[in-house]
Amino acid sequence: MPAPDRPRLGQLGEDEVLRQVLGRYPGAPRWLRVPPGDDAAVLDLAAFGGEAVVAAMDTVVEGRDFVREWSTGVDVGVKIAAQNFADIAAMGARPVALLVSLTAPGDLPVAFATDLADGLAAECARAGAVVAGGDLSDGDSIVVSATALGAVVSGVVRRSGAGVGDTVALAGALGASAAGLALLQAGITELDEATTARLQAEGTGHDEAAAAVAWALAAHRRPAPPYRAGPAAAAAGATAMIDVSDGLVRDAGRVAVASGVVIDLRSDLLLADPTPADPRLAVVATVLQDPALVGEWLMTGGEDHALLACFAPQTLLPPPFRPIGVVSATTEPQPAPAERQTTVRLDGRRWSGPPGWHHWPIATR
Amino acid sequence: MPAPDRPRLGQLGEDEVLRQVLGRYPGAPRWLRVPPGDDAAVLDLAAFGGEAVVAAMDTVVEGRDFVREWSTGVDVGVKIAAQNFADIAAMGARPVALLVSLTAPGDLPVAFATDLADGLAAECARAGAVVAGGDLSDGDSIVVSATALGAVVSGVVRRSGAGVGDTVALAGALGASAAGLALLQAGITELDEATTARLQAEGTGHDEAAAAVAWALAAHRRPAPPYRAGPAAAAAGATAMIDVSDGLVRDAGRVAVASGVVIDLRSDLLLADPTPADPRLAVVATVLQDPALVGEWLMTGGEDHALLACFAPQTLLPPPFRPIGVVSATTEPQPAPAERQTTVRLDGRRWSGPPGWHHWPIATR
Repeated sequence: MPAPDRPRLGQLGEDEVLRQVLGRYPGAPRWLRVPPGDDAAVLDLAAFGGEAVVAAMDTVVEGRDFVREWSTGVDVGVKIAAQNFADIAAMGARPVALLVSLTAPGDLPVAFATDLADGLAAECARAGAVVAGGDLSDGDSIVVSATALGAVVSGVVRRSGAGVGDTVALAGALGASAAGLALLQAGITELDEATTARLQAEGTGHDEAAAAVAWALAAHRRPAPPYRAGPAAAAAGATAMIDVSDGLVRDAGRVAVASGVVIDLRSDLLLADPTPADPRLAVVATVLQDPALVGEWLMTGGEDHALLACFAPQTLLPPPFRPIGVVSATTEPQPAPAERQTTVRLDGRRWSGPPGWHHWPIATR
Repeated sequence: MPAPDRPRLGQLGEDEVLRQVLGRYPGAPRWLRVPPGDDAAVLDLAAFGGEAVVAAMDTVVEGRDFVREWSTGVDVGVKIAAQNFADIAAMGARPVALLVSLTAPGDLPVAFATDLADGLAAECARAGAVVAGGDLSDGDSIVVSATALGAVVSGVVRRSGAGVGDTVALAGALGASAAGLALLQAGITELDEATTARLQAEGTGHDEAAAAVAWALAAHRRPAPPYRAGPAAAAAGATAMIDVSDGLVRDAGRVAVASGVVIDLRSDLLLADPTPADPRLAVVATVLQDPALVGEWLMTGGEDHALLACFAPQTLLPPPFRPIGVVSATTEPQPAPAERQTTVRLDGRRWSGPPGWHHWPIATR
């Protein structure tokens, strides 16, 4: 919790907070014809060769999607930018701009808002995009909504085009954010002496374990989606694509349902070195004394925002895509929600574990 | 408050709520190449002849921007769509799409979400736009963020181009939403017998008063910005434009500061029949027993989202714009926030009343 003498939003007022926040962003590129400060931003899409704009919106809520004990304002800024830009990349498009709305109580330290802006600016820079607008509102809790805009550069890839026989491929990390979250939930942000001794007895050195813990925590706090893989997949003719935000089973299921197919994942491919099953996942699982966690993280861990794409057979997969399975024909009608169907199989069997992240989990009676 | 037996968000779950909400929207036009349901929406801007996209974002929070005792879900939907599209129109652009993020507790009746969708759909239809995406999140209170996208059809009008000698003109209503809010704050949604008797003694008939009350309440709950006036102003060569969301003094001040000028408003023009000073404002002020309210509503009332634009002298004002003042030269440096400067005058004198709406009003010590 912040020191009580730091300035609060309500002390500075909207105009001054806005001035400080806008000061965190770099100068506007030429294609941002009207930058933040007017009624609306204006973007010249001709600079990207396209006449189509891609738009996605996502929100994070304090206490649900982040807690300030575990994530700084910079972390939250990176995360919301990343999850929105991942949706743009998952259409095969290039991220170009972000609009951000911060709702917060008047006693929130201004530093949170400026840290948030720093995180947004950093991830925008990584994605090749800019913060183009947004707004500030007074509210009881912190809610950050963001809208990402993208430009179509080589075609649009939807969820619905996967065909039987297609290769299922993945770009980016899987399970790393879930491993970091599991560490935070276990109260582990660094290794104590007892854990170090136990790990060493089991053959894992302190430095290796500490590096794996730091890697998983960073992956949870600041996901790094492989944005360029999105347009690369579109250029290579991907038939379907989605970003893995709610877990592999749930998001692969969405592609399967939209395309009317079954997605057959293979554990030998998922566990192949080096990605997507990063060997540090196993180290983190050892720290948490439960090796079975690795499989659960890989299959249901969300928020890494890897890109899952399908490609016609014989397509040369554009790097960094790696094969993780194949598309098969469905043998049943598809009326029920994705998670109750056999739309995703692992090594030929229906996944029987938890499906992944839900808002408002359905009440069990 | 809703009956306890209506289904709640948490009972239905995200997928089913989303299905019901999306069912409220009409079929996608051809230029919405990818409608809601994929990772992101794709809009073909070529259909509008432009390669530039205009984007604005605004948020409403329960307890701050609306209360459910005074506004239905439909009202909130209309209002958030209207305030976002007004920002698009204020750039001279045409509204084309809206993305909406609803954050709400799991015990919120699903009907609020579907009513909200109905309101969004209705205002989108009035604006010639569509709901193109959005998301649902779990949170402690209701926060609705929306991003409006627009297409540039005949040039972009910023806040900063007003020149000395320009005519200051207004399209749309002024003070009507503030009058409705004043009625709600006074607990008046219809006329009781005592008020009717008093008004009749003062020469105002019941039907006239009841119609004025209903008009002001509707204006507060469902603002109706004059969207087409935005592109019309751009086509007529407007030098500066803004939508009046926080009150005439505050928003005219923003144009004045951005353009480095003074805006001289004239009460004879503001009070000219028929608009912007609707005669029903005076009737509502009589109901509230304070005739002086009319001036305050006109000068500081927000949320009607009229368009304030400046035009070079001799420009034929495009309807429904009406002159309300002129642009004058500034005689002082402009380092301080807008509301502390003499940037807006009424009949030659600095406005000395409250400046208009602020988030987190600056603490007085």
